[in-house]
Amino acid sequence: MYASPIARLVQQLAKLPGIGEKTAARLAFHIIRAAPDDAAALAAAITDVKQRIRFCGVCWDLTERDPCALCADARRDAGLVCVVAHPQDVAAVERTGGYRGRYHVLHGLLSPLDGIGPDELNIGSLIARVKSDQVREVIVATNATVDGQTTAHYLAERLAASKVPVTRLAHGVPVGGELDWLDDGTLATALKARRAL
Amino acid sequence: MYASPIARLVQQLAKLPGIGEKTAARLAFHIIRAAPDDAAALAAAITDVKQRIRFCGVCWDLTERDPCALCADARRDAGLVCVVAHPQDVAAVERTGGYRGRYHVLHGLLSPLDGIGPDELNIGSLIARVKSDQVREVIVATNATVDGQTTAHYLAERLAASKVPVTRLAHGVPVGGELDWLDDGTLATALKARRAL
Repeated sequence: MYASPIARLVQQLAKLPGIGEKTAARLAFHIIRAAPDDAAALAAAITDVKQRIRFCGVCWDLTERDPCALCADARRDAGLVCVVAHPQDVAAVERTGGYRGRYHVLHGLLSPLDGIGPDELNIGSLIARVKSDQVREVIVATNATVDGQTTAHYLAERLAASKVPVTRLAHGVPVGGELDWLDDGTLATALKARRAL
Repeated sequence: MYASPIARLVQQLAKLPGIGEKTAARLAFHIIRAAPDDAAALAAAITDVKQRIRFCGVCWDLTERDPCALCADARRDAGLVCVVAHPQDVAAVERTGGYRGRYHVLHGLLSPLDGIGPDELNIGSLIARVKSDQVREVIVATNATVDGQTTAHYLAERLAASKVPVTRLAHGVPVGGELDWLDDGTLATALKARRAL
């Protein structure tokens, strides 16, 4: 029912994750009403990201330059490797401001039901990296979900031969969290992992 | 924390209505992972819509050609003008398949609190159109909200001098709706406007 350029834009926007037909139409009409500069900037940003973003050959994070800024930074501890599922997770750990090591991005988690095995992830490159580099510790920072835990255990097994210690993020009460609202599993884990005050 | 082309894309996407920082990042990473053709098609659709879409000089709907396909269609009854707030509403009425007249798009609703008065809407062109054309009836199809009702009453007053009948959409029980879930206002209106079976 819309003029064809509008219909085409709605159709393209509706391909984005979590954007249905209705939301796509709302976004399309916003773009139509927006300043021409804003629309041009959005279109340019999309084109740009596809042309300029590639994988870092060391840690497999998304980057403009290979190796990426984090891998090229000599002040960061190359002996610590934090393994994450997605590039977003690198940003999340960086936001804490408390980590000064390097990263390794798997680009997914093991999920046998979805047909995602070790060969679909950047696990081979991690093993090679741990063998060749002076890695003192591998921190597995995957989600605390079934897939995340499975991946963490698989990595620990694969890295056992290298004798490099493999650690994972602590489970416990979220900072600011109320016990009353916490699920039993988390509370039980937090109780078992209690620490001296 | 993201490489600059990614950060720029996230920033541009976050300008869209209802898209926050987190959703923008999710969309950006989807675009990065998408096929190059899909990303190019999205960028092209955005550029295209800004270049090719304009207002119809008659009904103010968005269109590629002026006058738009609906205004240029001689089979449609020029004596009936359906007044709507937004171009999306034209599409909604058209989807019913039951209307064969023309449209007039106000591009908004009267909203004194937001500083939107008659001069901010396409009301002058509607009055002129009703005066000059052979309009037999003006159907005000604005939302059944406070702003929509205010706009409808304002239009009825402004068009009173033209002696052209002004009608509005019927209120009542939505088709398929259950009385038990209906708000009291709608049920009361539906009762008052009851019709012979």
